[in-house]
Amino acid sequence: MTLHGTSIVGTEIVPAAQKTFTAFNPKAGQTLQPPFHEATEAQVDQALELAAAAADQLRGVGSDKIASFLQAIAAEIEALGDALVERASAETGLDLERLRGERARTVNQIKLFAGLVEEGSWVDARIDPAIPDRKPLPRVDIRRMLQPIGPVAVFGASNFPLAFSVAGGDTISAFAAKNPVVVKGHPAHPGTSEMVAMAITKAVRSQGLHEGVFSMLQSTDPKISIALVTHPKTKAVGFTGSLRAGRALFDAAAKRPNPIPVYAEMGSVNPVFVLPGALKADGAKIADGLYKSVLLGTGQFCTSPGLVFVQTGEGFDEFRSALGEFFTNATPGTMLNSLIAKGYAEKLEAFKKVSGVQNFTARKAPSKGCAEGQPAVLVTDFRTWLSNHLLHEENFGPATLIVQCASAAEVLEAAQNLDGSLTATIHGTAEELPQHAKLVDLLTCIAGRILFNGFPTGVEVGYAMHHGGPYPATTDEKFTSVGTAAIYRFAKPVCYQNFPDAMLPPELQNANPRNILRAVNGKLTRDNIQ
Amino acid sequence: MTLHGTSIVGTEIVPAAQKTFTAFNPKAGQTLQPPFHEATEAQVDQALELAAAAADQLRGVGSDKIASFLQAIAAEIEALGDALVERASAETGLDLERLRGERARTVNQIKLFAGLVEEGSWVDARIDPAIPDRKPLPRVDIRRMLQPIGPVAVFGASNFPLAFSVAGGDTISAFAAKNPVVVKGHPAHPGTSEMVAMAITKAVRSQGLHEGVFSMLQSTDPKISIALVTHPKTKAVGFTGSLRAGRALFDAAAKRPNPIPVYAEMGSVNPVFVLPGALKADGAKIADGLYKSVLLGTGQFCTSPGLVFVQTGEGFDEFRSALGEFFTNATPGTMLNSLIAKGYAEKLEAFKKVSGVQNFTARKAPSKGCAEGQPAVLVTDFRTWLSNHLLHEENFGPATLIVQCASAAEVLEAAQNLDGSLTATIHGTAEELPQHAKLVDLLTCIAGRILFNGFPTGVEVGYAMHHGGPYPATTDEKFTSVGTAAIYRFAKPVCYQNFPDAMLPPELQNANPRNILRAVNGKLTRDNIQ
Repeated sequence: MTLHGTSIVGTEIVPAAQKTFTAFNPKAGQTLQPPFHEATEAQVDQALELAAAAADQLRGVGSDKIASFLQAIAAEIEALGDALVERASAETGLDLERLRGERARTVNQIKLFAGLVEEGSWVDARIDPAIPDRKPLPRVDIRRMLQPIGPVAVFGASNFPLAFSVAGGDTISAFAAKNPVVVKGHPAHPGTSEMVAMAITKAVRSQGLHEGVFSMLQSTDPKISIALVTHPKTKAVGFTGSLRAGRALFDAAAKRPNPIPVYAEMGSVNPVFVLPGALKADGAKIADGLYKSVLLGTGQFCTSPGLVFVQTGEGFDEFRSALGEFFTNATPGTMLNSLIAKGYAEKLEAFKKVSGVQNFTARKAPSKGCAEGQPAVLVTDFRTWLSNHLLHEENFGPATLIVQCASAAEVLEAAQNLDGSLTATIHGTAEELPQHAKLVDLLTCIAGRILFNGFPTGVEVGYAMHHGGPYPATTDEKFTSVGTAAIYRFAKPVCYQNFPDAMLPPELQNANPRNILRAVNGKLTRDNIQ
Repeated sequence: MTLHGTSIVGTEIVPAAQKTFTAFNPKAGQTLQPPFHEATEAQVDQALELAAAAADQLRGVGSDKIASFLQAIAAEIEALGDALVERASAETGLDLERLRGERARTVNQIKLFAGLVEEGSWVDARIDPAIPDRKPLPRVDIRRMLQPIGPVAVFGASNFPLAFSVAGGDTISAFAAKNPVVVKGHPAHPGTSEMVAMAITKAVRSQGLHEGVFSMLQSTDPKISIALVTHPKTKAVGFTGSLRAGRALFDAAAKRPNPIPVYAEMGSVNPVFVLPGALKADGAKIADGLYKSVLLGTGQFCTSPGLVFVQTGEGFDEFRSALGEFFTNATPGTMLNSLIAKGYAEKLEAFKKVSGVQNFTARKAPSKGCAEGQPAVLVTDFRTWLSNHLLHEENFGPATLIVQCASAAEVLEAAQNLDGSLTATIHGTAEELPQHAKLVDLLTCIAGRILFNGFPTGVEVGYAMHHGGPYPATTDEKFTSVGTAAIYRFAKPVCYQNFPDAMLPPELQNANPRNILRAVNGKLTRDNIQ
């Protein structure tokens, strides 16, 4: 497949701009061809104007058609074959097996949303029928359902070039709710972005949808990001990436004359708590699992466990030395790009310099030519951690910090002093967990997902998943970016009062032609309204 | 009932501060006793620290207990008897009949939420059970439900001293979701606020809840408002009031180190569209209904219809002259306070000064001593409206602006150029409405509730109501401040992975002890998990 190296605005490959950038193979340490042309502000405007026009069409499109569109995207991505994962691997340093898995997840996620919109009950239809003889005043007929929000700007993430990128959860959930999408592809994998964007474009064409339903802009320029977020036609933003970038987008959106929501998934330390019984019984197993979880994808998972609280006691010394051995013998891994590798190395050094922090760093140094991250486990005590806010922060890469607590009270104090995370994990025996109910309770305040005897890396895409959490994990802890509930970011209620049946959306008509579940006077039913 | 004239922090009447303010009877033009002591920043801090401690308790309180607490609040408000509506009438100029109606609505609203939490399915429980033999990887058990968000700051509104104030929809929906609340009472009705706050305080005590569950601060100082919104322990904000005040709170919350959501319901012009068939058939009736809707509560409803688009044609002249006659013969009405009356009069003058705007203002001038608003209907043409953004804005009071459109195309252009509103209304015949499907569609983009052949004043409190809309109607069009869905502002999902059954909240346990509807693998059921 030949790459064009340009942005795609409204199914068209747009004329090349002067400025270009290139992708880089972090494993080989080599620049990749072709050069990619930087999107312009005029293209941002063009994409959003087309998207606004497409939104007018999409609101009237049936849910079956949206489901077909999603299925067509899934098929077009699969049709790209190995060329897609090969390019993605070259651009990210992630191996082919991992990328095949990520492609499967991406495609399954698209099919899950197709099923959700085909079934249709997700629109939260509510009907309070008229009561003409109510005293003192008659009750009017009120019906409510979720409707599309309008053009959505999506920012691709670097660490999941497929599942959180051009056709990732943000784009697909926005489409599922009948919204057009303008993606800014992540500049570290522009070729992957173009291939997936062309697949979506084919699906837009084959389904006869408005050309403005999808655009994808290639850019390394923060000004283009801000232009996307502040464009008057943009109605919501989906983002996965760093705290700094996510906060910048959030701030720009909040300052608009009409503020819009930014659903940014950002920094997360994903604390792990090892309870005394588990430490004693399973310390070696937990150390092994933790090590593998931290090293997964060279530590570049939003859910990578970056902090581990352990109460000193039987098994602690063995736990620490097992981890020390694992990490000192570990091999440096390729990181997504040199910027990320540099950021990781610098923060690791800053952590090590904190007085009271001990470190076990991989003996083998990272290679100079390519972007590698050196695995490390750091160890400190509770007081040192509590008094150094730097040690509360995420360091995106293959490192974790063990915090030794002197008592159960210190463990609880830690939970009360943690920033928001996507996940929090407890390792314990079934017998001891009930004594730690307070810890479980406190973790509901600081994490979106709480795991028992597991590791947070690996996020199930399903109905019950919540991939979100209090700031700085996300900018809005009410919403998830993974799983079917992700669709609720891109829809809003509209209420119809006293409307003639035929003028209502099908979901709200008396006969319930879509046969969805609806809350009638607050009770869920598929029954008709008499 | 003797009023203490102070704030109430954690069920205690707090020591009097030096600075005081008084309420004012806008009808009588008289200062009311006693003086009220201004809350201090130290009291804000004390209220939030207590609220945070109470949040720890509330998370563990059963839903039945929350329902009893709400019922106790309703009973205590009713027990205040006529003293409450009499004080409210003196402080707001609203008549006793209206206030008795508002009290009934407030109490019914509380009982509706009590029923909602007792039933319990609102928590959106989702369970994806484990599939140990799934290939290539086993699926872990994932369960998710909504949990409390933490201390909520609520700002009472001036125009509904009961239904949108100390025990209004914001406070009650926050309690229903198990959150403590700190209210800043509106300074125009401090006596009413104190009476209702004491009723809530009695309910907190009789139910044996933590004292920090509720506090109410009396203040005229914007610094206290900002202190409430920026306090580290505040997790969300509910507000009903002016665009300027709402936006100031939103901006302060967005600039926090950890931003929090502000659910502000603010300015809304509530456009009305009169279609040609309705104008011809029912012009006189619509003019009468519109006039009454605009004058209701002296125009001080968030849903007051401030803009009316009418296509010139048969019946237009009669419609305009009927309205002209109604308004010129109308009597000035008491407004909530002199500040609001002044703001209304100034904006009305500014509207009148726009070249191309004709006015029919009540002949009788407002009285000098008390806060009165002079009813007025203004008339202009589409082009004048389109080119003067001032005429797109809300003027809170008994005035409306008729915009004469030359064609159906101009009507559609109007809909495309409107700011966000809580409501939009169409008057039409059942026969002509289908020809205006595009108008209905466009209105879903600019209003939260669309009415057919009705008037937007009067908001049903039910399951299907959506009292929200795009900015500037609210700061978050996804949420409603009226109806049961208002609870979703103050809850957030928490997901449990691989948890022992006994350690899960009852709502997520296998046996479904609360017998709620739960989505199991995406299908709603009350069945147990096997």
